[in-house]
Amino acid sequence: MEASAILLLYCPDQPGIISEVTKFITDNQGNIIYLDQYVDREDSMFFMRIEWQLDCFLIPRTKISDYFSTLYAQRYSMTFNLYFSDERPRMAIFVSRMSHCLYDLLARYKAGEWNVDIPCIISNHEDLRFVAEQFDIPYYVWPINKDHSNKDEVEAAERELMEREHVTFIVLARYMQVLSNAMIARYPHHIINIHHSFLPAFVGAKPYLQAWERGVKIIGATSHYVTADLDAGPIIEQDVTRITHKDTPESLVLKGKDLEKIVLSRAVTKHIERKILTYKNKTIIFS
Amino acid sequence: MEASAILLLYCPDQPGIISEVTKFITDNQGNIIYLDQYVDREDSMFFMRIEWQLDCFLIPRTKISDYFSTLYAQRYSMTFNLYFSDERPRMAIFVSRMSHCLYDLLARYKAGEWNVDIPCIISNHEDLRFVAEQFDIPYYVWPINKDHSNKDEVEAAERELMEREHVTFIVLARYMQVLSNAMIARYPHHIINIHHSFLPAFVGAKPYLQAWERGVKIIGATSHYVTADLDAGPIIEQDVTRITHKDTPESLVLKGKDLEKIVLSRAVTKHIERKILTYKNKTIIFS
Amino acid sequence: MEASAILLLYCPDQPGIISEVTKFITDNQGNIIYLDQYVDREDSMFFMRIEWQLDCFLIPRTKISDYFSTLYAQRYSMTFNLYFSDERPRMAIFVSRMSHCLYDLLARYKAGEWNVDIPCIISNHEDLRFVAEQFDIPYYVWPINKDHSNKDEVEAAERELMEREHVTFIVLARYMQVLSNAMIARYPHHIINIHHSFLPAFVGAKPYLQAWERGVKIIGATSHYVTADLDAGPIIEQDVTRITHKDTPESLVLKGKDLEKIVLSRAVTKHIERKILTYKNKTIIFS
Amino acid sequence: MEASAILLLYCPDQPGIISEVTKFITDNQGNIIYLDQYVDREDSMFFMRIEWQLDCFLIPRTKISDYFSTLYAQRYSMTFNLYFSDERPRMAIFVSRMSHCLYDLLARYKAGEWNVDIPCIISNHEDLRFVAEQFDIPYYVWPINKDHSNKDEVEAAERELMEREHVTFIVLARYMQVLSNAMIARYPHHIINIHHSFLPAFVGAKPYLQAWERGVKIIGATSHYVTADLDAGPIIEQDVTRITHKDTPESLVLKGKDLEKIVLSRAVTKHIERKILTYKNKTIIFS
Repeated sequence: MEASAILLLYCPDQPGIISEVTKFITDNQGNIIYLDQYVDREDSMFFMRIEWQLDCFLIPRTKISDYFSTLYAQRYSMTFNLYFSDERPRMAIFVSRMSHCLYDLLARYKAGEWNVDIPCIISNHEDLRFVAEQFDIPYYVWPINKDHSNKDEVEAAERELMEREHVTFIVLARYMQVLSNAMIARYPHHIINIHHSFLPAFVGAKPYLQAWERGVKIIGATSHYVTADLDAGPIIEQDVTRITHKDTPESLVLKGKDLEKIVLSRAVTKHIERKILTYKNKTIIFS
Repeated sequence: MEASAILLLYCPDQPGIISEVTKFITDNQGNIIYLDQYVDREDSMFFMRIEWQLDCFLIPRTKISDYFSTLYAQRYSMTFNLYFSDERPRMAIFVSRMSHCLYDLLARYKAGEWNVDIPCIISNHEDLRFVAEQFDIPYYVWPINKDHSNKDEVEAAERELMEREHVTFIVLARYMQVLSNAMIARYPHHIINIHHSFLPAFVGAKPYLQAWERGVKIIGATSHYVTADLDAGPIIEQDVTRITHKDTPESLVLKGKDLEKIVLSRAVTKHIERKILTYKNKTIIFS
Repeated sequence: MEASAILLLYCPDQPGIISEVTKFITDNQGNIIYLDQYVDREDSMFFMRIEWQLDCFLIPRTKISDYFSTLYAQRYSMTFNLYFSDERPRMAIFVSRMSHCLYDLLARYKAGEWNVDIPCIISNHEDLRFVAEQFDIPYYVWPINKDHSNKDEVEAAERELMEREHVTFIVLARYMQVLSNAMIARYPHHIINIHHSFLPAFVGAKPYLQAWERGVKIIGATSHYVTADLDAGPIIEQDVTRITHKDTPESLVLKGKDLEKIVLSRAVTKHIERKILTYKNKTIIFS
Repeated sequence: MEASAILLLYCPDQPGIISEVTKFITDNQGNIIYLDQYVDREDSMFFMRIEWQLDCFLIPRTKISDYFSTLYAQRYSMTFNLYFSDERPRMAIFVSRMSHCLYDLLARYKAGEWNVDIPCIISNHEDLRFVAEQFDIPYYVWPINKDHSNKDEVEAAERELMEREHVTFIVLARYMQVLSNAMIARYPHHIINIHHSFLPAFVGAKPYLQAWERGVKIIGATSHYVTADLDAGPIIEQDVTRITHKDTPESLVLKGKDLEKIVLSRAVTKHIERKILTYKNKTIIFS
């Protein structure tokens, strides 16, 4: 398959944007294979994802960004990102002790479902080294002190590793530590977390116990981009499952595991496919 | 169909309770047509719903409660309620301005789905009088002042009406007023509310707007018994529906209406069927 | 609110269609308030729904269709339909004996949820006349003989009525008769049926009994356009609900009623909003 | 944790069965930790699952079955099975080329979610040997000829292996061969299959393609016990996911994989927990 270019953009809505952008691509012999757009009429903002094949495209790939910026982005005050389908995102996975999300991510990776590289798995515990070894992926452990006194050093080492490995985004696969604001700022809207509740219900620790105590009839899981506010970043995907009075905190944990892994993997899929735009702490998810 | 007796009970768990209770019924020629039980192993509490036909039952219906109390309830420290299938619950419906839940309740009532009487519909506005008239049900309006200064009088009048009409439980079908603690105490765990969010997320006013602002991917509705704490009573039923970034606060209101009416009617069904026990601010829902 | 024009079209996919159509509208001072498109890459077919405000539009509304046809539709081999938001669809409802779908349709209509007129309700039984009277809608009964010997006359009378009333589409709200091919041909893809199963499972009669006998764990309902093949027309909407071994054929009927009315009303909503295109016995549903 | 005994039984419904069985256990110092029962009122059949701790139980475990049979089963014409919680079921997994279900099963097994042993993975292809090796489970390959001429030999070898390994039940984790009736008869209601459709819709080959061609709006997956009739055995669990006109046969396959693995693993969980009774080609699933 030929490589394609993927353009994600948003700007104040104005007549003619789709027309101009599609004309730019087709005039230059690009074959559009995906176009989806959305207008937020409240804010008068326009959002678009457009993808086209590069094989006959007249503009060299290294110059597309410049051309587009000069010809359209400045004129329409666009914020845009340009990706190429043959430049694979590189994903670092952070884990603590629970294996269900990690196995789900790695099984998909190994089955070739995702156009992604996984150069490293990072943890504060040795527990899941055996999983990394099963899949032949380097596993790095930096224990974090109970008083968090070494957190800055640990994060510095993690960042150094990730930069060396050209990591482009991070997946927290039930990683039980809170990242520092510095770390979060380094990967803005590029850290995906799975929270084991239907956010914004049950923020923080032990959401299944909270859910059980409240007596809800449905539990959920939420994947979101990490921001400086705990469990309050842009939501990417949620799903739920029905429970009854017969469920215990323990059975909720088991039922929740299935939700968590599916909801996390769906979010990772959308991120890898470059189908997510974030705007005002929300996500636009192209289909 | 012959009348049946319905016994709902709970007590500290002990060996032999099911055996004793079923023996009591079968020894007295009662034909058991429903039995479901549940043990909360955390609290060692036993919960049961049992229903049997009365036609050959040797104990007269007026004495069953006494006999059961003397022979078993005291011995096992049971809390119990006895109902008869031919004694229909009497439901008062409170509404404000929105008709979707009211229509759904009345359509089921009119179609004979429910073993219930509806002697009155009560409102603080005239808006839905035409619906009550469509279904020939008396409609009473007591406007509440903006400063709530006449709330005590209004509730006194409402209570007086409901007592005269032998109302046994209340359904708040998108009634936009908060009931006083005195009113709630008069109908403990017999007032069913529909809250238009997936509780405990988005307590209070304008939950759809809150949901839209948070950017959730799923919205919900929750029916619960009303207690003195706002939106915090025992949850009876919840359901959810998927939304996207394309939804607006207005489209959430429309999608939510379908959830609200179904979730409220399911809770009312369970209440009418005497299939709900409440314990420690949670519900046990027999199937 | 100003009237808007709604254009639904499909044609073989070619570069530049969106660009051309949006340019046509914006060049003529139309303010686009909705645009959604989809490309079926298997068949290389392009589908679009576009809506724009008419108040400043330079082409008079009576000539839009001609202009568009001449300038674009012929060139691109488009199939298209043009609607105006202030020309309300006119819906005829067909019913037999069950009221749940009818009440749900009429409650929405009465609450002003839909931009639609309902000039008539047609039945083969008197049973639901009282519902029509509650809502002040003319109710017509043409009984059909057991041997169907008078079916042609009945349908002729129904068609005559619907033509007099300028009916634009038909909703079969649990109407238990099969329409003739002549009737179906008169309203191609403009008759919406609700089938009480998850099609294509359990085609034909008594789907809940079939579902119960098969022991499924989930039941469903399906709304679809009626075609000459029984229960095989383009599916518009489906939904499901979970059941257990404790359910009986009777409880399935009750649970199914909630599905049926919601699934039917969602389909009617989409049809009224002109958000459905049919192609090759499938629907494209714009969001 | 002490071992417990699990009794699954059904018989014609009669007064006093629960009372007798619970009395038998409590009189012999068994502490009941689970009881759930169900009456099929159509067939007047009684179904029960009861579990009790063995540590103080007066009847030796080797004699419980005899005693129960003599004292109750014969009297009430019961069909029953007795299990002990410390006698782990032994599961053989059959696979072909797709890894998603296999990974899901093995990840749960490795995480200790299940009280089960997995002595062997059996396949007609080498493709998934690497997964078995990742988890250190013996992997056996018997290729089947295109004309199926060696099917009897292959199944004989498989059966011989499974008998040597004391396999108690089989999981077909997207195994693409049809088992012979002889094989099925050897493990009656002990072979769990996952079918990638919402049965009974789309029986047989390529259900996702069938679903796409029919234009359904929801797809499903079904786990069931294998019987001599293809895809027609007792259904254990089903689940569904929503799709749109934008989905392709390929995207259905991807979405379906998540359904398949979750639905299969839920069925396996219930089987391992001995919470399934089969009766008249249906399942009773205890909660």
